[in-house]
Amino acid sequence: MQNSDYHSPPPVEGVAGGGTGYGWNDASFKNARLLSRVVDVSRQPTSDLLHVWCMPSTATLGHQEPPRPLEQISLLVARNERESAQIALRPKVSWAGGGAAGNVQIHCSNLRSSSGHELETGNAVSLRRVVPILGVPDALVPLKSPTAQISLLPGETSALWLSITVPISQPPGLYEGEITITAVKADTDSGNGYESEFDKEEIKKVLQDFLAKAQNEEIKSAQDLGNGLEEICVGLRQLLQSPILSSTRGENGSMDVDEDWTTSLAVRIKLNVTVWDFVLPITPSLPAVFGISETVIEDRYGVEHGSDSWYSALDLHYKWLLQYRISPYFCRWGDNMRVLTYTCPWPAHHPKAEEYYSDPRLAAYAVPYSPVLTSSYTAKESIRRELEILKTKQHWKKAYFYLWDEPLSLEQYDVIHSMAREIKSIAPDARVLTTYYCGPNDGSHAPGSFEALVKVPEFLRPHTQIYCTSEWVLGGREDLVKDITGELQPENNEEWWTYVCMGPSDPYPNWHLGMRGAQHRAVMWRVWKEGGTGFLYWGVNCYEKALAPAAEIRFRRGLPPGDGVLYYPGEVFTPISTEPVASARLERLLSGLQDYEYLKLYADQYGRNAALSLMEKTGLYNGPERYTHDHGPIDTLRSEIYRSCKPG
Amino acid sequence: MQNSDYHSPPPVEGVAGGGTGYGWNDASFKNARLLSRVVDVSRQPTSDLLHVWCMPSTATLGHQEPPRPLEQISLLVARNERESAQIALRPKVSWAGGGAAGNVQIHCSNLRSSSGHELETGNAVSLRRVVPILGVPDALVPLKSPTAQISLLPGETSALWLSITVPISQPPGLYEGEITITAVKADTDSGNGYESEFDKEEIKKVLQDFLAKAQNEEIKSAQDLGNGLEEICVGLRQLLQSPILSSTRGENGSMDVDEDWTTSLAVRIKLNVTVWDFVLPITPSLPAVFGISETVIEDRYGVEHGSDSWYSALDLHYKWLLQYRISPYFCRWGDNMRVLTYTCPWPAHHPKAEEYYSDPRLAAYAVPYSPVLTSSYTAKESIRRELEILKTKQHWKKAYFYLWDEPLSLEQYDVIHSMAREIKSIAPDARVLTTYYCGPNDGSHAPGSFEALVKVPEFLRPHTQIYCTSEWVLGGREDLVKDITGELQPENNEEWWTYVCMGPSDPYPNWHLGMRGAQHRAVMWRVWKEGGTGFLYWGVNCYEKALAPAAEIRFRRGLPPGDGVLYYPGEVFTPISTEPVASARLERLLSGLQDYEYLKLYADQYGRNAALSLMEKTGLYNGPERYTHDHGPIDTLRSEIYRSCKPG
Repeated sequence: MQNSDYHSPPPVEGVAGGGTGYGWNDASFKNARLLSRVVDVSRQPTSDLLHVWCMPSTATLGHQEPPRPLEQISLLVARNERESAQIALRPKVSWAGGGAAGNVQIHCSNLRSSSGHELETGNAVSLRRVVPILGVPDALVPLKSPTAQISLLPGETSALWLSITVPISQPPGLYEGEITITAVKADTDSGNGYESEFDKEEIKKVLQDFLAKAQNEEIKSAQDLGNGLEEICVGLRQLLQSPILSSTRGENGSMDVDEDWTTSLAVRIKLNVTVWDFVLPITPSLPAVFGISETVIEDRYGVEHGSDSWYSALDLHYKWLLQYRISPYFCRWGDNMRVLTYTCPWPAHHPKAEEYYSDPRLAAYAVPYSPVLTSSYTAKESIRRELEILKTKQHWKKAYFYLWDEPLSLEQYDVIHSMAREIKSIAPDARVLTTYYCGPNDGSHAPGSFEALVKVPEFLRPHTQIYCTSEWVLGGREDLVKDITGELQPENNEEWWTYVCMGPSDPYPNWHLGMRGAQHRAVMWRVWKEGGTGFLYWGVNCYEKALAPAAEIRFRRGLPPGDGVLYYPGEVFTPISTEPVASARLERLLSGLQDYEYLKLYADQYGRNAALSLMEKTGLYNGPERYTHDHGPIDTLRSEIYRSCKPG
Repeated sequence: MQNSDYHSPPPVEGVAGGGTGYGWNDASFKNARLLSRVVDVSRQPTSDLLHVWCMPSTATLGHQEPPRPLEQISLLVARNERESAQIALRPKVSWAGGGAAGNVQIHCSNLRSSSGHELETGNAVSLRRVVPILGVPDALVPLKSPTAQISLLPGETSALWLSITVPISQPPGLYEGEITITAVKADTDSGNGYESEFDKEEIKKVLQDFLAKAQNEEIKSAQDLGNGLEEICVGLRQLLQSPILSSTRGENGSMDVDEDWTTSLAVRIKLNVTVWDFVLPITPSLPAVFGISETVIEDRYGVEHGSDSWYSALDLHYKWLLQYRISPYFCRWGDNMRVLTYTCPWPAHHPKAEEYYSDPRLAAYAVPYSPVLTSSYTAKESIRRELEILKTKQHWKKAYFYLWDEPLSLEQYDVIHSMAREIKSIAPDARVLTTYYCGPNDGSHAPGSFEALVKVPEFLRPHTQIYCTSEWVLGGREDLVKDITGELQPENNEEWWTYVCMGPSDPYPNWHLGMRGAQHRAVMWRVWKEGGTGFLYWGVNCYEKALAPAAEIRFRRGLPPGDGVLYYPGEVFTPISTEPVASARLERLLSGLQDYEYLKLYADQYGRNAALSLMEKTGLYNGPERYTHDHGPIDTLRSEIYRSCKPG
């Protein structure tokens, strides 16, 4: 273009233009390299293409989370413990099509100690993708191990959940490894998926041409035939070397990623895991009993009650949940708040019952009291047979009966009494658990008053041993705990447990979806400080009714989102998977239960008051309204306990 | 399992269990079919697998948008007009892997009238995917036409943006067509993308076997050679028919989707488009001048100022924006609020200048006053040459000078005066536009007072013709308009224009990202009611500095999100695409400009008061704080204008 006589204005950068000029530059930009017009992932360092940074497991990494500098991940983990951290990824630029920014390949090495011991990726070390539920990052969908590929969206931060689960037999020591993140070309245009089809069509066309040529060859002589054959060989060789059949990843056309290429371009995250010589007790110090709805399983998986596949489905849920230091019970609701609860779907004489009840990871189990649903003679006979077996067992001390949820009237109290009487006529030392958030509405105390709540043991005694009150009642008043526990008779084996359900809501600790990560973890800090000897949670899989395993997950209307749902059906994220998908909240709950063991270890050695003072000093937890929002105090407390309690 | 003597409890459905039982069922669930354990998309009607429903273009369809019943889409469109609607998709179940719920294929038919005229898909009819920006659905990324495939995520609502752009020559009438949505198997496991690679490897292996066989063939006789050749032909035929090379979509292995299959299982959305006999004026009745930052283009696309690729880049942006009834100007900021603005990057004598300035779609153009940046003799000579040419042209009446943004002091007013004097010494009838949101801070009126603002013409006269005030000044007080316009001298060609920039903020109309759709559209309703004769917007592409076309889009700090950004670089969503990606806000701005033409048509026929009363009666717009949030009144107003103004 000949515009030499047109004096085009020089490029001047406005500084006073407010938002209209480039009024500012952020720090991360100053070091950015100039990218070429088209991004070539096989040459460009991944750090030019995306931000990678690490965050603690209590962070909520939404799509809008802004980047931070990359630092290494250092975790302190006991034996038989799991600790987690998060890795955030956010594209700086797009290098793929179909609406995605691009794909990254994630490789996680084994962690190795100087003495050659290993924490193996895929077992002890796992990576899951954090998937939002109702817009909140929560579902942890497993990634392939040791190498996975995920797609990133433009303008969105994605998060990975790294967990180190240290086996009980793992030798203590410092384990080191790394995670490498490498931007790769997407294999296909995942937005429409047509690309691989076009390739196939192209290959077919080439082969059809060969075939036509070979068939039309007029057979004249050996010479001609030889030429024909030779021509096809040349063609085949050309096809084999053509871009159509070349691999899109790596450079050598093989399935293996070129190690050098990965190493030189990848973002590398150093992993330092200190395994210390404390073994978290296999049997949790705090019985945490959590309900699994059998109705939900029956509907979603289409399994008929009592069928073989029903037993398998329940077994799968039970075993999966057990790894979270939780003592599961199955539940089904009758009319009023009558509830059938049982930890083992098999009868007491069945070999599976022994397997369930004597599992050292199980801290408490619910014994089914089937007359709660039908008071037939058969039902009563069945419970008698069950009890006659169970009461003789070593594990009987773990047994409890949970017969009614939150009784509200003296009439309902009477029903509990009559059921409990029947149970105790067979097994006098049976423990009955009753949940409550208020006193009877027709008792001698003002209905709804705290006084009425405190006096509940008067009405339930002697047939309830485990008085399980709602944390909602306390709100921020942890001083009320002593009023409640003051009414109990520990000398008569009366215990105080707590539960959360719907309430308490923010700012108190609970597992609602919208709460902060430290708030999820704090539920168990609260339990430790308040001194209850057990904990109950009503439901882990109580999504709305659905009739297919892969059906959309919906929370029940009227409940705070996340309440009653601590894991998700795996089929929703990967139809062929039957393994449940944990929520980040469940992992934080596990962390809380592990913190409980740390606090107990410290208290056993230095006294409960020292442990309480450590909680306070580190800023971890001072009360249900005053606990840390940040991860810092968690690490400080754990390090301090490690320092003070490690042998030698 | 032999549990016959164990009386397992009967399935009882709790009703009083609150959230703990299935306390409720929502209506949409009652009609749900029982899905099989594994979803087979080739047999299952798509309506079993996902919710599909339609929404107006003013709706904000976030990922959490709940499903509604499916109704047909009916649009009323004039000739030379574009109207849009949205289609929402939400999986009821998952049928794919890799974290996705599944893929759907979207096919859009041509629309056909009873007289056989067509609105063609890909041209007049387009579908774009609505992609969130900072979590707000905004970027409209084009889909392949007429058939596209997208992937849906579990628990997330996705939205498609349907636009009908009626050509000026389109015969009026009712046009009908349909969009079909069909759940399909994903072509590859998009979570890792390895599948297509494995296929390639397999093909290579088979071909290598052939080659080895052909090469090892001992040439004995013509017979042997013939056999060898024949063997290869058989092998090729087998390979061609093998599953490795068969298509994964449809059932007949061809690229074409099996029509019967699609038809029987798809969700079908009926499209009814009434094209009426009003032609939206090619030249917009309201000059709406919008700034394109040349600095942003230079940095992001790496084009050197004045180079061929610089001209191409500017040309692309200019032409693309012109389709939105917008008169673009390029801008670059100098010190203070000095600004260089120009609609055409070529000098006046260049053929491109004529092409730009005389384009009937351009309602106004900015003439570059390069001395704003450098007051060299060359610069002054250059502007003189420009003006000598332009002032003789037919299109000169569209010309304006925009020299300074929001002057604040009498000294800055003086600079404007001196520049304007120089311009007018060459072209006495040149129009100068000045933006302001307050009076001079050192004038005779109290700084920051409304009085000072109203008296601005006293200071700028006679060298400013277009008094362009910020809507932010008015807030909710549209009664102040008459005070401002009362000071102007229309007899001396003084005009009143308005602008929005940063402010006004919610609840007033503007184009911030977080605002409601009707709020975006209402900016132009406000302009029509307040009676300004032009409108200015400072920036359409003013994202934060970036040095690669596909670099992450970041809004500038200190500006409300979306302010100064009405479209996005296409490269961020599809690296090979250079076409900008419109925001939903830009489409709603276009709709507002089109509504302006409807109101003008009505006012021309029935008077301005009748049009104002129609706006009020329908509930469309009563003032900057009282206008519709819903789409209903928009349709009512447009239908009423169609009914009252259609010929015959």
